[in-house]
Amino acid sequence: MDTTTELPEPWDVYLKDCPCRDLLDLLANKWTALVLGVLKRGPHRFGELRRAVDGISQKMLTQTLRNLERDGFVTRTVYPTTPPTVEYAMTPMGAEVSAYLIALSAWSQANFSRIRTARTAYDSRSLDPVS
Amino acid sequence: MDTTTELPEPWDVYLKDCPCRDLLDLLANKWTALVLGVLKRGPHRFGELRRAVDGISQKMLTQTLRNLERDGFVTRTVYPTTPPTVEYAMTPMGAEVSAYLIALSAWSQANFSRIRTARTAYDSRSLDPVS
Repeated sequence: MDTTTELPEPWDVYLKDCPCRDLLDLLANKWTALVLGVLKRGPHRFGELRRAVDGISQKMLTQTLRNLERDGFVTRTVYPTTPPTVEYAMTPMGAEVSAYLIALSAWSQANFSRIRTARTAYDSRSLDPVS
Repeated sequence: MDTTTELPEPWDVYLKDCPCRDLLDLLANKWTALVLGVLKRGPHRFGELRRAVDGISQKMLTQTLRNLERDGFVTRTVYPTTPPTVEYAMTPMGAEVSAYLIALSAWSQANFSRIRTARTAYDSRSLDPVS
């Protein structure tokens, strides 16, 4: 089947200059997957997200959230408390795309034992490093 | 629902030291998504993959394929021709996980127009850069 028929849009992730490749780059990212996985459970504040995603730096979380907000996957709401409270929530479009990423996280977790077996087998063979 | 009940394995992608997070990092990657998307159509040689995935460097393709082979998602077969022919193919486990990544690539392509609209709206607002 011709992919042009499948996808009426003019975008093609296989072309390096297609702007949709940057979108794939943003989405196909462990931090995006983990952050969206937390927001799937409901709105969260910055500090809550940071604690939930063990090991994410403040800078990386800020950048991830800003990109997700800019692309319409996440909303950022400031409540006029003292000090102001900022809450991040998933949009319906974020929920749509997060389904694939959450499935990928769950798969990685559920199948890691199989991968570890494959790695051990690979490492025990002595392979010539030529591709 | 408690995720412990859903996932009987001892792995947790939300913990920074869990080795399954490195697996998520390998998988949640645009190059992995694009390479697996090509291999889904059948076995390919290195040069064919490189041409299919516009913009991937030789080094990045070599690294991506080696990681995928090591983890059991791809096989690398050397045929004793002169010069030797090397062919990469997807394993059943690769097909399993590629489903999510191919869906993500297809989603990025099919929905990029919506994202572009969201970006334009975001950029036209003047936002305070405080997270």
